[in-house]
Amino acid sequence: MSDKVLLDYGSGGRASQRLISDLFLNYLGNDELNRLNDAAELTMSGRVAMSTDSFVVDPIFFPGGNIGSLAVHGTVNDVAMMGAIPRHITCAYILEEGLPMDDLEKIVKAMGQAAENAGVTIVSGDTKVVPKGAVDKIFINTTGVGDIIADPAPSGDAARPGDAVLISGTIGDHGLTILGTREGLDFEAKVESDSAALNHLLVRLVQELPEVHVLRDPTRGGLATTLNEITVSSNVCCELVENSLPIRPEVKGGCSILGLDPLYLANEGKFLCILPEEYVEQALEIMQSDPLGKNACQIGRMTDANPGKVVLETPLGGKRLLNMLEGEQLPRIC
Amino acid sequence: MSDKVLLDYGSGGRASQRLISDLFLNYLGNDELNRLNDAAELTMSGRVAMSTDSFVVDPIFFPGGNIGSLAVHGTVNDVAMMGAIPRHITCAYILEEGLPMDDLEKIVKAMGQAAENAGVTIVSGDTKVVPKGAVDKIFINTTGVGDIIADPAPSGDAARPGDAVLISGTIGDHGLTILGTREGLDFEAKVESDSAALNHLLVRLVQELPEVHVLRDPTRGGLATTLNEITVSSNVCCELVENSLPIRPEVKGGCSILGLDPLYLANEGKFLCILPEEYVEQALEIMQSDPLGKNACQIGRMTDANPGKVVLETPLGGKRLLNMLEGEQLPRIC
Repeated sequence: MSDKVLLDYGSGGRASQRLISDLFLNYLGNDELNRLNDAAELTMSGRVAMSTDSFVVDPIFFPGGNIGSLAVHGTVNDVAMMGAIPRHITCAYILEEGLPMDDLEKIVKAMGQAAENAGVTIVSGDTKVVPKGAVDKIFINTTGVGDIIADPAPSGDAARPGDAVLISGTIGDHGLTILGTREGLDFEAKVESDSAALNHLLVRLVQELPEVHVLRDPTRGGLATTLNEITVSSNVCCELVENSLPIRPEVKGGCSILGLDPLYLANEGKFLCILPEEYVEQALEIMQSDPLGKNACQIGRMTDANPGKVVLETPLGGKRLLNMLEGEQLPRIC
Repeated sequence: MSDKVLLDYGSGGRASQRLISDLFLNYLGNDELNRLNDAAELTMSGRVAMSTDSFVVDPIFFPGGNIGSLAVHGTVNDVAMMGAIPRHITCAYILEEGLPMDDLEKIVKAMGQAAENAGVTIVSGDTKVVPKGAVDKIFINTTGVGDIIADPAPSGDAARPGDAVLISGTIGDHGLTILGTREGLDFEAKVESDSAALNHLLVRLVQELPEVHVLRDPTRGGLATTLNEITVSSNVCCELVENSLPIRPEVKGGCSILGLDPLYLANEGKFLCILPEEYVEQALEIMQSDPLGKNACQIGRMTDANPGKVVLETPLGGKRLLNMLEGEQLPRIC
């Protein structure tokens, strides 16, 4: 094969087949994918969660991951947020003619490893190659399905006054890393993306706790935007305590240099867990026992004070309204 | 909203939500999509077919359809080729900053209509907006799931010597239309894409015939490439009769002007049906009773003469080997 991606590789003909067998099946192969039918044959039964995401992150390689691992984690997490065990994902590549094959191989390899860690199989795929300039390097779509084990499934409209709001760890890491890498900034301390598959931890929470109202990952738009969506859907008020928000000092520092608010920065390995106050201790114990939740803590609670609003209590006792992100802070963050 | 797509519309914040509620939910909405959770909750049972495709066709509007209707038809057809009833699809847009909102609306509207005609619901979605130049106008991924009703499911490795090879209609229409439109050619006679959802017809075939070995849509790479894939997977020889191939005179004419071979041109509303000789009459009757199969006919048969090969018998009695497409005839055909 050439050392760069050629248009021929997306033809559907012999060159496509070589790319599929030599690269994709090598890293992603399994009994179902290897059959190379137009569709995969799966066995699913009962309540199924299904979610799709296209990944357009720039740069495609960044500290803590690359577009391939991110594409697996993102969809696995979205499925798991429904209280589901992610089972299978599909994977569709759009490649720019001329993309170095080495880069593509690193990305595909990372997808294979991420899928293995998450315990999902990649069951069907698609590859398009477009002429130089029609896409920036590589975009990846992943779509996942999983078995819902929570009954009822956690949902953005299920938060209730009195619920506690927990976060699984520090916020802003992914967003600041992407921006820093893109702009070639060299932060004093190391910052890296938190991109990770959260499904194993989420399944434990759903299985071991009697009740979980909302699970949601604060990706694009960050914690503030995600909480606004939830308060609107559930018609409750979220009262956050600023001092309780876990933010790495290096992320705080990077944000103040760049004029960014970590509350609006994307996360790719964190989740919000909203549940009745009485289960907080048990939930934090489960979360903190997992490396991906070791910094988990309570950051606020839901009330009926100002339905649809997110209010931040500052260290001096003042209150600040956190609006939903209005415009675009950072395009191509995921 | 602006008359052009802005970066803000992909932020995950308030502007994204306006685009989703004013445009996407307006044309694609249903109970599940309207909940706007990270994933959809579906009920599936037993054997499930799942398929993904990204659509990068250029131009995005063409006689017979646009990228939106094509994206629905393509995935619905891939699911249906497994002998399955397509149920749900996801839909992920990658939009270029500056895309006219009128164009996006036409595309989304066409998707809604195509989904309704095919009887599938769009259950989950994703929208990314990338800066001008990072993608050419709009790319769409669709991923579909459906209930497999055929047992065993038709498969590319299930053709047997003695099987008849049927095609549901004329070949080359889509490929020639796209190329003609892209190059601004004005053919004497009207040629248009055959893009269509084939699932209703396919379900009838699977339900009414005792045995169907292979169902496959000859998209990228055309009829010749698809038959090569099947002969290799099934280890059989395909003997085609050139005179029996249904090709519109205007497609034949356009191809000879442009130096293209219709056997290698993409189709988006046709399928190959490979089954035991004894069911040919019944199969053709079913196919011809549907407008999408009115030109259905037998074009050849499978033998054990040259396993893995596709042989074309010419009108003068000669034989020509039809290879798989080697390079790329037409990038961005779907």
